[in-house]
Amino acid sequence: MNVLLVYAHPEPKSLNGALKDFAVKRLEAAGHTVQVSDLYAMQWKAVLAEDDSLDGKLGDRFEPSRDSRHAYQNGRQREDIAHEQEKLRWADTVILQFPLWWFSMPAIMKGWIERVYAYGFAYGVGEHSDTHWGDRYGEGTLAGKRAMLIVTTGGWDSHYSPRGINGPINDILFPIQHGVLYYPGFDVLPPYVIYRTGRMDDVRLAKICQELGERLDSLEKTAPIPFRRQNAGDYEIPSLTLRDDIAPEQSGFGIHVEDGSQQGILTKQRRLG
Amino acid sequence: MNVLLVYAHPEPKSLNGALKDFAVKRLEAAGHTVQVSDLYAMQWKAVLAEDDSLDGKLGDRFEPSRDSRHAYQNGRQREDIAHEQEKLRWADTVILQFPLWWFSMPAIMKGWIERVYAYGFAYGVGEHSDTHWGDRYGEGTLAGKRAMLIVTTGGWDSHYSPRGINGPINDILFPIQHGVLYYPGFDVLPPYVIYRTGRMDDVRLAKICQELGERLDSLEKTAPIPFRRQNAGDYEIPSLTLRDDIAPEQSGFGIHVEDGSQQGILTKQRRLG
Repeated sequence: MNVLLVYAHPEPKSLNGALKDFAVKRLEAAGHTVQVSDLYAMQWKAVLAEDDSLDGKLGDRFEPSRDSRHAYQNGRQREDIAHEQEKLRWADTVILQFPLWWFSMPAIMKGWIERVYAYGFAYGVGEHSDTHWGDRYGEGTLAGKRAMLIVTTGGWDSHYSPRGINGPINDILFPIQHGVLYYPGFDVLPPYVIYRTGRMDDVRLAKICQELGERLDSLEKTAPIPFRRQNAGDYEIPSLTLRDDIAPEQSGFGIHVEDGSQQGILTKQRRLG
Repeated sequence: MNVLLVYAHPEPKSLNGALKDFAVKRLEAAGHTVQVSDLYAMQWKAVLAEDDSLDGKLGDRFEPSRDSRHAYQNGRQREDIAHEQEKLRWADTVILQFPLWWFSMPAIMKGWIERVYAYGFAYGVGEHSDTHWGDRYGEGTLAGKRAMLIVTTGGWDSHYSPRGINGPINDILFPIQHGVLYYPGFDVLPPYVIYRTGRMDDVRLAKICQELGERLDSLEKTAPIPFRRQNAGDYEIPSLTLRDDIAPEQSGFGIHVEDGSQQGILTKQRRLG
């Protein structure tokens, strides 16, 4: 299959650089075709701005959504944006790899999302009616494709555990996994997270490569996180709140996962209930 | 008092631009001194890179934390970074204002955090021992200062409600409010969030300005979100997990707030319990 690896780390000789090289080799050895968007090496333009449309702003003010729609619909996007959209259409699976900086992706990758995710491509897709609120959260341009995060952190795994001070890792990643990946249609596989990167030696690195290799070998058969589809009956429209009889009296990110198993919150809530 | 407004929107004639201008006038009329870091207008460099140190990378590879520490400790930071740190030291209250793009801050503001939050300034501060794991989460360089978010969203308030499909707004903002602001020491005030920005008219804008004005008038007396202090006994060290007897059997972002009232999750969990 076709795999797009979107990668954000400034140093090729870093742990992230080594893991990226490992992943590409492993995937190619398995017969996949791989493209890498190495954002630092590409000197990716991180900042969404009016010059993202070859027509500039329409009228007297720049309106990001409106102007993005115009450029997307009329073939007036900057070439760098259109090229990344082509890669996304080409890919069967997309991997985002990055170090967790301040509990989110690096700015350069956030800017890749903001610019490549044009209106009409990743949002503003599909009809809005009483039963269907746009093609999103399980439907959309990227439906049928798979996505997965590879994330490194300096902090320890316990710091990101269900009761860890940073918050559970799946909750920290929810705005990305659900909000950035599931929203335009991806099926999202569980993330592969490497903690405590300051403590790395050859033995540990070998173990990580073995684990990561197994995840890469099973990309096509790993069960995605069972996020709930927006337009399949679970949500009221247009309030987009979960129906009262589903996970009643509960709230938080976990209720948007069908079995709750991927979000620490709901597992605990169910035990309480 | 001294107020720093860090602002990220590309269009001065936008709703965000109007609210920024309103906020500055309101604060100045109340006798405060205001500085604005208008990141788009400043053409802020969003991408953290080795040229953030005047000495470049140390040795044969760029290591962001190590090289940031070196530059910070030796007065070798790029001037734009040092200048923003001075503003943060000067400020009594810091406001971050931005549109919520893909469930987080715009890339240009994320890059402001990554670059200005140097090692030794915003992290890597204080001793690590059996009872004290660095000056963070309630202690640190920015302790004693207040911070608050002003956030706009295109989505409706119900979409961000406790059972809304996007996730509860306080959970979406937790990585910023807790991870970016509380971590280096800020007391974090509840956010001011404006939903459904596509539906704006003069009547609604007047109401928003009234509400926002009241929030700005009360910056000094509004109670902060009672996040738990890391080194005050609530957490095990070094695992940094919440003590078993505090919010027992619960997990998720909400357990890191003392009364749980600011996080939808915990309120619901307690009802269940």
